Amino acid sequence: MSHILIKNGYVITMDGPPIRDGFVLIEDNKITYVGKETQQAEHVIDAKGCVVMPGLVNAHTHAAMTLFRGYADDMPLQQWLEEHIWPVEAQLTDDDVYYGTQLACLEMIRSGTTAFADMYFHMDQAARAVEESGMRASLSYGMIELFDAEKGKSELAEGRRFVRKWNNAADGRITTMYGPHAPNTCSREFLSKVKEQAAYDNARIHIHMLETEAELNQMKEQYGMCSVNMLDEIGFLGPDVLAAHCIWLSAGDMDIMAEKGANAVHCPVSNMKLASGIAPVPELLSRGVNVALGTDGCASNNSLDMFGEMKTAALLHKVNTMDPTALPAGEVLKMGTSNGAKALGIPAGILRQGMAADIIIVDMKTPGLTPVHEPVSHLIYAARGPDVKTTIVNGRVLMENGIVLSMDQEKVIEQASSAAKRLADEAKVK
Amino acid sequence: MSHILIKNGYVITMDGPPIRDGFVLIEDNKITYVGKETQQAEHVIDAKGCVVMPGLVNAHTHAAMTLFRGYADDMPLQQWLEEHIWPVEAQLTDDDVYYGTQLACLEMIRSGTTAFADMYFHMDQAARAVEESGMRASLSYGMIELFDAEKGKSELAEGRRFVRKWNNAADGRITTMYGPHAPNTCSREFLSKVKEQAAYDNARIHIHMLETEAELNQMKEQYGMCSVNMLDEIGFLGPDVLAAHCIWLSAGDMDIMAEKGANAVHCPVSNMKLASGIAPVPELLSRGVNVALGTDGCASNNSLDMFGEMKTAALLHKVNTMDPTALPAGEVLKMGTSNGAKALGIPAGILRQGMAADIIIVDMKTPGLTPVHEPVSHLIYAARGPDVKTTIVNGRVLMENGIVLSMDQEKVIEQASSAAKRLADEAKVK
Repeated sequence: MSHILIKNGYVITMDGPPIRDGFVLIEDNKITYVGKETQQAEHVIDAKGCVVMPGLVNAHTHAAMTLFRGYADDMPLQQWLEEHIWPVEAQLTDDDVYYGTQLACLEMIRSGTTAFADMYFHMDQAARAVEESGMRASLSYGMIELFDAEKGKSELAEGRRFVRKWNNAADGRITTMYGPHAPNTCSREFLSKVKEQAAYDNARIHIHMLETEAELNQMKEQYGMCSVNMLDEIGFLGPDVLAAHCIWLSAGDMDIMAEKGANAVHCPVSNMKLASGIAPVPELLSRGVNVALGTDGCASNNSLDMFGEMKTAALLHKVNTMDPTALPAGEVLKMGTSNGAKALGIPAGILRQGMAADIIIVDMKTPGLTPVHEPVSHLIYAARGPDVKTTIVNGRVLMENGIVLSMDQEKVIEQASSAAKRLADEAKVK
Repeated sequence: MSHILIKNGYVITMDGPPIRDGFVLIEDNKITYVGKETQQAEHVIDAKGCVVMPGLVNAHTHAAMTLFRGYADDMPLQQWLEEHIWPVEAQLTDDDVYYGTQLACLEMIRSGTTAFADMYFHMDQAARAVEESGMRASLSYGMIELFDAEKGKSELAEGRRFVRKWNNAADGRITTMYGPHAPNTCSREFLSKVKEQAAYDNARIHIHMLETEAELNQMKEQYGMCSVNMLDEIGFLGPDVLAAHCIWLSAGDMDIMAEKGANAVHCPVSNMKLASGIAPVPELLSRGVNVALGTDGCASNNSLDMFGEMKTAALLHKVNTMDPTALPAGEVLKMGTSNGAKALGIPAGILRQGMAADIIIVDMKTPGLTPVHEPVSHLIYAARGPDVKTTIVNGRVLMENGIVLSMDQEKVIEQASSAAKRLADEAKVK
């Protein structure tokens, strides 16, 4: 890889004050300089009138579910899952997951996301799509044990195989996690084994936690305690855990998460669309819990644009607390960048010497971002994915001036469209 | 004007089932055919892979406030208004409002809005900007009487002058309304006079109503009743009234609005950002109240992209009612199109023979809108302003394939940017 210099931009480092007309130098896959002093390189990108910032981190998604974008909306959760999502998911082939994940990567590259945490099935194909796309991802095979010890064994075996096969693949862009589905779909014994195995493999864990009130009620009935208490009792919670949703938390649960250093991933759009509830994000942040942001899958969002997710997060907690100062723009930008990188355990989310060169350039010269009083405000309240001009991951330019270089956009759209059509047709027949 | 034919699109008429591969014929400023039969015209627009639909209607905004986009966020309402917004607004000149409104029109044309309801100051300049931009708008001079009878006289005189000067200007694209600011900033006597004058001029009325709990409390203290009751008592409410926000409504208030046929404009992003509260939109709709959508001004949004507004509306009421079936996509699309047109009293919002040719074409072949299971779902949950390819108002193509034809984009951005900078610099000095 060559050296790349980004110059003339308004550099938001997430590591100190912004730098006007700053220089960001990339050598191979790392950032080697961020500052005001003139630098040289073969490949120079002029970022005049643009913000240069860390790439966004989508800390909870199911990438291949792009195939189900708009497939079923506006219905009760159980009907949505049982009559629509599960039947089409049951038809998914390796190729479908490959095409769906490609489409997700294409959409994310275009909208400034440089890394994501994924949990799904047919994960070898997801990994192949990520490897080819040039993106960074923390991938996990979603293990659903359903209190069946035999199924638990095979699920854990598949999770382990995937973790070991793909960890640190693609020049380190791919890392892997164990992905037990949720505390109410996996037994305590299974979750203990997963924790043990993850510790042995030095792998992180990606889990859904307290997305619905139904989970809370089920846990109380089954264990006489909520998910956080149960997980804490078996020593599950720690800085290696990425817990998606975290809606139905008590104050005591939040204290435990803070004490154990577990990461929460807030998915406001999905939580609103499915009427799951509102996660207590300001309270989590005030306790020092690391809160990242995720879009969730495209069946419940229906977009992977993290700019939309950031705006929604900033708005939702203001009206929910009736406090217009809640979750200010700078805090939300951290959630979308450095907090996400921390949750995934990747050396990104901050522009600093030695960090991975995961960088985006956002064009501030568009009508919707004019005038520029405060760039951070624009990133949260006014920017949208299409305002991203250039996306760099691990020192490689994946999109420049709106043209994706690492993927064949037409082909990805065509293949994903026909896979989606076939899946919908098959589900109709059943 | 020439005849324009839009063919091969997926036509969402808002007046019956969608038409695949439909033809929409425009003659001069009207729609003369919508259907499946082959049509001919000099100017043919191929909408293959696109949705053809009525332009979006932004039913409450303060267009020139684009100049204050991102100028002040994340602070308590009174501090925001008194220390930031009012001081810069006090500096506004005619030119500023002209440049700011131009920028708003440019942003709206780009994001598929074809008509808007505006309330602001220096309105001759706003009207000039609208006239030149090619957009349709219902404009009002914002009258703030502040319980001062003398001020009331001059405000009403200015409101009347503007209404009469500009109504039906620009080939009928500009209509005018009276714009009394709010029930708690204008006396009952003043509001009665406004109503009388508006009836005399056959003009509509644009007013803020129950945006904040503070207004509700103030009204109760002053009149022993809320804004809706007071307005009803003086015979103010009717189908000619556009009431923005409508958050703090009782069930009785909603019944009155339904009975009188008053229009409500929901502004979810602004209401969330300022922590004003959540309007009871599902309850209003179930009573048959016509509910439109608005972005409000750019200081409290900070975008004029109605796609963002539609998605936020659809999400907010689901989580607020904990019902994932609340405000389904089709309902929200009506709010953004036909309900808006009805609220403004313009013959648009529906693709039907005889209606004004206010039409947009949305590209469904982008990664973020792939695959297409259900176009209406995409318009609400996945599309963003930049997905709009072509915008037609009153039979004139204002943007084609992403290129704005009716305005000089670079110049608009430059002029608005320097006006905004000057205003911010002046406010700093004070």
